[in-house]
Amino acid sequence: MSAPRADIGALQAQIRAAGLDAVLTVSGANFTYVTDTLILSHEIIPERLCMVIVPAEGAPLPLVCLPEAKQVRQDSWISDLRTYVEFKEDPMVVLAQLLAELGLSNGRIGIESLFLAVTYERQLATALPGATITAADGVFDRARAVKTQTEIDILSAAARATEIAIYEAFSAARPGDTEKQLADDVTARLLKAGATSRWIVLAAGANSAINHPYPSAKQLTKGETLRVDVGGVFDGYQSDVARTAVVGQATDEQQSRYQRLREIERETIAAARPGVRACDLYAVCRKAYEKRGMELCGAVVGHSIGITLHEHPVLRAEDETELKPGMLFNVEPATIDSQGFLYHIEDLLLVTEGEPVIVTTNMDTERLFVI
Amino acid sequence: MSAPRADIGALQAQIRAAGLDAVLTVSGANFTYVTDTLILSHEIIPERLCMVIVPAEGAPLPLVCLPEAKQVRQDSWISDLRTYVEFKEDPMVVLAQLLAELGLSNGRIGIESLFLAVTYERQLATALPGATITAADGVFDRARAVKTQTEIDILSAAARATEIAIYEAFSAARPGDTEKQLADDVTARLLKAGATSRWIVLAAGANSAINHPYPSAKQLTKGETLRVDVGGVFDGYQSDVARTAVVGQATDEQQSRYQRLREIERETIAAARPGVRACDLYAVCRKAYEKRGMELCGAVVGHSIGITLHEHPVLRAEDETELKPGMLFNVEPATIDSQGFLYHIEDLLLVTEGEPVIVTTNMDTERLFVI
Repeated sequence: MSAPRADIGALQAQIRAAGLDAVLTVSGANFTYVTDTLILSHEIIPERLCMVIVPAEGAPLPLVCLPEAKQVRQDSWISDLRTYVEFKEDPMVVLAQLLAELGLSNGRIGIESLFLAVTYERQLATALPGATITAADGVFDRARAVKTQTEIDILSAAARATEIAIYEAFSAARPGDTEKQLADDVTARLLKAGATSRWIVLAAGANSAINHPYPSAKQLTKGETLRVDVGGVFDGYQSDVARTAVVGQATDEQQSRYQRLREIERETIAAARPGVRACDLYAVCRKAYEKRGMELCGAVVGHSIGITLHEHPVLRAEDETELKPGMLFNVEPATIDSQGFLYHIEDLLLVTEGEPVIVTTNMDTERLFVI
Repeated sequence: MSAPRADIGALQAQIRAAGLDAVLTVSGANFTYVTDTLILSHEIIPERLCMVIVPAEGAPLPLVCLPEAKQVRQDSWISDLRTYVEFKEDPMVVLAQLLAELGLSNGRIGIESLFLAVTYERQLATALPGATITAADGVFDRARAVKTQTEIDILSAAARATEIAIYEAFSAARPGDTEKQLADDVTARLLKAGATSRWIVLAAGANSAINHPYPSAKQLTKGETLRVDVGGVFDGYQSDVARTAVVGQATDEQQSRYQRLREIERETIAAARPGVRACDLYAVCRKAYEKRGMELCGAVVGHSIGITLHEHPVLRAEDETELKPGMLFNVEPATIDSQGFLYHIEDLLLVTEGEPVIVTTNMDTERLFVI
């Protein structure tokens, strides 16, 4: 690739604004963010460190375990990279040598302090005693919050593919199918649409009261509602969509509760304008619940999304970040009825200069979907 | 559940042998290991900390984010647990209070130093200034290396289901199918067999030279070999099986190279007896390559497996751990031919008092599978 998908210039501006000379990525998410390369080892063999040094100016420099080099050369817009040999070389010592080569022996180096493990940080500090190693989580959070058009396109396509997978699987489902069969059908459609991995929460009736249950052998039973909350990784970026259905037909109470939830979601989304703060959106949502005689129980009603599932800013009472055009949010109110059944809607929205754009509109969500 | 699946007594013996009063788990793997509960949030929302305090004696005590409590109560053998409210309470402060309640304010607390992030460790150290916080990675590694019969049964069933998924998908595949179609077929069979998540590496011809490529739109082409390396999570435990096939028919050179690789694998497995060290097995494997005019290129020829994919001990030149009955290893030699095609076999073996038992024997691997 010739150009990065993300805005690396914005990251470097944040690095400079934080008074840092460079940041170090160790997480898979920030590796993908900087290099446009998704490395499976980050998921399945995390101790096989693959890192990037991002200087305040100039090209980022990846340091990866030797077997991963071919993939980075194939997928990344970055042409220069360094390697280490697993079990023969200590990656943090090689990293310190690289930082020294870059003239950063006495530099201010930002780290992912909510991710970098204690031992690795100590190894780095020992190998580079003149450097100042400091938390830079906010640098990444702020840079990643506003997406480029390329990122918006990838995330929108991912969300739409996920919504369509749910819709098609719901349309094919029949009473008597099991949660597991329906979940596997959604998964198959997600993978066919290009997801490299996926997670899924799908539960019917009382099972839905568990936060993240694994789909079970329970059959879809008339009169029960069904909640699916599912996401996949597409081109390294996440999707996250939730939908609720009813088996057979809805009672008036079920329909009413669902429709109020959907109104709450739309009222919250409509308020997502530039300059509004994340906490303001949370307050709008809380009031929308109250107006309809319902209660917002969760501390969070939505989150940004990108290479990770829950990104900064988060729609909660304590997050005062102002919304900006190019931010993408998942808004996801939920409610539990008197039978203990959970109702959940989650859509992706794009903040623009004008009205917010709802990305996931392929499925009619005005009324409960009937299986 | 009434009894833990893993040997928590063995963990506590390791805690005492290390001179510790307790260990703290933060990783999803060690949470599952201690509690028998698989929490999806550990995978998709890792910042939602779910931890366990394991004292040197007495019952382990989980501390989880409130929405996860129901699942722990449902799945775990541990009856008592504590919760915190996300964004309202600081989990490391609540954790420090719990440690104090347990009389550990001045205790020696072991941490996962290759996993626990810098900021969390500092928060804990600040909130519990009298405690000594020290690396205890080896405590977990040693305790988890020898599996209980329950763990052996789960891991064996997982490996067999994975091998059968490959075999059935290979049997259904035809020249002209794409890598992606075949990979999705393997995945569908894995999920149907009960996997809650999966990863897959599947590549044909020259694509196989990348370490962990994502399955592509490349078609299976006569004369090319095809490598699949795939694993799933079953009941919280991992599988990992690799197989190689040829499309159309094998040349003499392809068949010869494959059969030598398979002899190397069997020769290595046959040496897996109690008292033999991991590095000895690596040396056996290296010699088996040399005897056949081939070269062992990797620094690793296999690894333990359990709740994580690569566990201690690892079959490499520097690992002097002695094999014991109840250890399970994936042995996985590989070789590249003159066309750049990768051949890879990976089987699960159980170390016993007598001969090692190969678990994955449902597919005939003596000759290249022909698609």
